[in-house]
Parts: sequence; structure tokens; C-alpha cells
Amino acid sequence: MLIRGVLMHHLVKDLLAGNRRAAARLITLIENDDEEKRSLLKEIYPHTGKAFIIGITGAPGAGKSSLVDRLLQQIRAEGLTAGIIAVDPTSPFSGGAILGDRIRMQDHALDAGVFIRSMGTRGSLGGLSRSTREAIQVLDAFGKDIVIVETVGVGQSEVDIVKTADSTVVILTPAGGDSVQTIKAGIMEIADVFVINKADLPGAERTATEINMMLDMNGEKPWRPPVLPTVSIKGDGVDKLWEALQEHRTFLEDSGKLLDVRRQRVRRELTEQVEYLVKTRIWDEVRDTIELDSLVEKISKRQQDPYSAAGELLAKINFYKGDHGEGG
Amino acid sequence: MLIRGVLMHHLVKDLLAGNRRAAARLITLIENDDEEKRSLLKEIYPHTGKAFIIGITGAPGAGKSSLVDRLLQQIRAEGLTAGIIAVDPTSPFSGGAILGDRIRMQDHALDAGVFIRSMGTRGSLGGLSRSTREAIQVLDAFGKDIVIVETVGVGQSEVDIVKTADSTVVILTPAGGDSVQTIKAGIMEIADVFVINKADLPGAERTATEINMMLDMNGEKPWRPPVLPTVSIKGDGVDKLWEALQEHRTFLEDSGKLLDVRRQRVRRELTEQVEYLVKTRIWDEVRDTIELDSLVEKISKRQQDPYSAAGELLAKINFYKGDHGEGG
Repeated sequence: MLIRGVLMHHLVKDLLAGNRRAAARLITLIENDDEEKRSLLKEIYPHTGKAFIIGITGAPGAGKSSLVDRLLQQIRAEGLTAGIIAVDPTSPFSGGAILGDRIRMQDHALDAGVFIRSMGTRGSLGGLSRSTREAIQVLDAFGKDIVIVETVGVGQSEVDIVKTADSTVVILTPAGGDSVQTIKAGIMEIADVFVINKADLPGAERTATEINMMLDMNGEKPWRPPVLPTVSIKGDGVDKLWEALQEHRTFLEDSGKLLDVRRQRVRRELTEQVEYLVKTRIWDEVRDTIELDSLVEKISKRQQDPYSAAGELLAKINFYKGDHGEGG
Repeated sequence: MLIRGVLMHHLVKDLLAGNRRAAARLITLIENDDEEKRSLLKEIYPHTGKAFIIGITGAPGAGKSSLVDRLLQQIRAEGLTAGIIAVDPTSPFSGGAILGDRIRMQDHALDAGVFIRSMGTRGSLGGLSRSTREAIQVLDAFGKDIVIVETVGVGQSEVDIVKTADSTVVILTPAGGDSVQTIKAGIMEIADVFVINKADLPGAERTATEINMMLDMNGEKPWRPPVLPTVSIKGDGVDKLWEALQEHRTFLEDSGKLLDVRRQRVRRELTEQVEYLVKTRIWDEVRDTIELDSLVEKISKRQQDPYSAAGELLAKINFYKGDHGEGG
């Protein structure tokens, strides 16, 4: 255990020294929810906060991967380094097990300035959004200038994951004119930049117009998301996307919003950590004190309700001087 | 406050007496996370546990609504009553605001044996899955024999929602042969019955064969999900679906699995209630004791990490004798 802890500590040292294998290993430990995870993240934390985090989301087939690849070329051409986390909430695979990502990684295998990692859901979505945030911390401490979180889909789950980003790009396609109708209110709110990919297909302009109209209806905002056409397989428009992201970053920095957003993220993190500790200790205590099975049995038989039972359980372990809730 | 409490109590009495408006009002209070919610659910709880809960999930356009409508006819023809909760995690609308559901409700408006309600996400997915579970309790206590939870999509979020059901139906369509490829591992595991809807379209048989093959690869299981063709707009195959659901119910009851599944659900409910009470009280205490803003500021500046800060915060409010975690 102690020896393992020492080895773990070396992992963080190696990460900070720029060792790719250490980065990969740390993300795997995070994904597996290793017991050392929290102490590793604690060590990593002081070295974070430098990377700019870009979230990219869009429906399957919208061309996310190729757009990210093009963006990557742009970022590298500017002399910046990048980490990519490709999140697929619907996939049980992770750790580069997806064929497409393996190919992508090979493309950049010789470029020390790029680190690509894919993550799928092994448990709950909450777990995935948590490990994504932690993987970002690793790549941030690893020294990557830009961390891109690429996530499939446009549902609530993706919104949660994308909340971690400083700037969020929503990718749509003109295909069938369907896309605009399926834009969810939540997605409208999270987009800092809209991209109409496959803009060489018919309907692209109409899609752009519709989004612009929706944005106009939203009223005056300090930042007005641009709507940009791209053709990711050719690389068309990717320079403009990069420009827009730079502008948004400048806006965030100049307006003080970047600090705000990051402060909110810290608050969320602190909240989660507090609740994690509380839960862990409460259940440790409960396990030592309460016959949980018989309580469950009693509730199952409707001899008690779970609301009163919860209050009584906390009273039994003397949680806050035994002042148990009335369940109301 | 007191008067309100008395009125609320009447609501539960009215629900138990079969008043539809009381059922609708209670679900709205749940959706709005009304402060009286927990005390209402506590009152409702002893009257639950009688309904059989069927979860139905499938991609948008798979024909869920029309299949559920046909199933409803079948259920009514058997002399049973039913409650339907139509969940759309991607929709910010709820409470019957969706046009389609309003039309559906009108169809059954004169039938006292049917209650239909749609729910969308107002906040987090976790919130939606919680209020869905609570709405089921209301319809169960309301005396409905069958409660159907119909949910859009086949992602992790739907899996979470469907976990509440005793029997789960996964609807697929033969369209393009795409469906089978997009079945996620999680979905394979939750299905008790597979339906190939629109079975009059080409490729239906191939889709069924592929699913059967996947099921065979899964090895011997005490329950082997049947794969049933339906044409929901014509009503074809719906009788067989109802039969399969009856068989599954009998299997659950005879094998003791129904009790197991419901015991697990009670345990989850108890856990959530305990954690809810704990969190509420911890944050009340923190609010009175700690300068949270300055702590967030300190962490934002990387002068402290959120992991140690969480432990120190709990020590300050004397959570469990001040034995604060090492954050490791």
C-alpha cells in the first residue's frame, strides 16, 4: 500500500515532467476510480488552471472527429500543444478501445504536442462527467495549452459534460434541414460558437439563417455566438473557427467572465468533494451500526416509508446530535 | 404554511379516492420540487407497491407512442386500468405541454381507467429520473393496475429511468438495418422483451435474427427475452407483446425476482433519502459557519486544493467529531 503510494507519487512527478505514459496511466486510474485517485488529483491540482478548455459537441455523423483533427493542425501550426478527450456517453468502451480513435492516435503518435484519449461510460453518466473533468485536470497539469473535450450527441448528458469547457462549439449539419428543429433549448444556451459543418451540402445557408434568427430572438447578450460554415474533410473554414475561439477567449478574459466561470467550477468541485466525504463517512457509520437489510425489508413490506426511515437511521448514528428529520 | 399542509393532505385523500385532478396536481408538485413533496410522498407510500410497472424505450420515430396506445387498448380490454408517464429527457416541456401528448390525452379523456402524463427535463437528468419515480408512486397509489413509463432514446439516461420498471420493452425498427448496430450494451441488458416495430418494412426479419443471435451469445439466462414483430399503427402483434409481458411478470413472481428487484429499488430510495437529508443539513450548517466565497477564491487561486478544503470544511462544522479526511 505504502509502496504503491510512492509509485503513484512518481506518476505525478513523471506527468509534470511531460511523460506521456504517466498521463495515460493517470487517466486510466481515474477511469477505474482507483482508491488513490483523490490523493493523486490533490497533487495535480496546484499545477492546473493554465489550459484553455474547448468543448465540442454535435450529433453522431456531424463530422466532429474530422473537425477536431483539422483544429488540431491549426493549433499545432500556431506552436501550441493540445490534449483531446473524446467522450462517448453511449459507449461502454474507453481508453482508446474505439477503432476510430486508435487510428486517430496513430496519426499523431509521433507528435509529442498532441495527446488523444477516448472515454466511454462504464457506469453512470455522472461518473463519466466526473472522470472527464478529472482527465482534463491531468492534461492541464501535463502542460497542454489547449484541452479539447469532444462529445457525441446533443442531449442533457452532453450538456453536463460540456459545462466543463471555457468555450463550447456546437456542430450542426445542413442535412435535411432537420438539425435546427432538433436543437434543444439547452444546446442553444451552451453554444459559444455554432458550426455548420458539411457546408457544401444543400441547405447549409438556410440552416445558418435559422440559427441566426433563433439567436436574434434570444435578445442582446454580451457575447453573440457566430455561426460559421465549415467543410471539415477539406479543412474549409477551420481557420475562421479557430479565430472565433480566440475571440471568445479574449472576450472571456477581458470581461472577467473566465474567472467567473472557473470560480463556479471550483465551487461545484468543492461541493462534490464535501458531499463525497460526507456520504462515505455516513455509510461507513451506517454499515457498523444499522441492520440495513431488515430496514429495507420493513420498507418493502410498507411497514415503514423510506422518508421517515432515513431520518430515524440518521438519528441512530447520532448524525448531528440525533435531531432527526421529520421526513417532511 | 399550516393551512397549505392541510390542503396538501386533502390532495392525498382525494388521490386515494380516485380523483384525477388530485393525481395531476400531485405530479405537478413533484415536478416543481415543492417543499411539501416529501411529506406527500410519505403519505402516499403505504398505498404503493400494487401496480405493475412497464418501461418502454426506443429511439425517436420507432413508434413508441402508437405502440403504447395499442397496448393501452389491450390493457383496457382486459378490464385493467393504466397510467402512462411519457418521459422525454431532451424536452424542456412537461406537464402535457407537448402537442402530441395533448392529443393522446384527449383520446382517453373520457376513460377514467387511463391517466396520461408527459414529463420533460427541467433540470438535471437525475432530477428527471427522480420525478419519474415519484410520479409512478402517485399513479400506483392512485390505483392504476399497470403503470407504463415510456421514454425516448436509448442512451444511458433512459437506462437510468427505465431501471424503475418491473418489465422493460425495447423497441427497434428494421429501418436500414442500422438499429442493431446502434444497440448499446446497456440496452441489451435492460430489455426483457424486444419489439421490432414497423415489421412490415424490409429488413425486419434480419433485424430480429441479429438480435436473437446477440441474445444467444449472451449465454443461458433464467429469462430469455423474446423478440416480437409488431406493426403498431395497425395494432399487429400487440396481443403477443401483452402476452409476453404477462409471461415475464409470472416469471418475476414465480422466481422471486420481483421481490428482489423491488427490494433493490427500496434500498436505492432509502439511500437517496438519507443522502438528501445529510446534504441538506450539512449545507445548512456550512452556510451558517463558513465563508464559502473566500474558500472558493482561495481554491481558484490554487492556494488550496478542493480535496483538502472539503476535509477542512467538514472539520470546521464538527462533522463527526472533527475527524476530517486527509483528502486521500
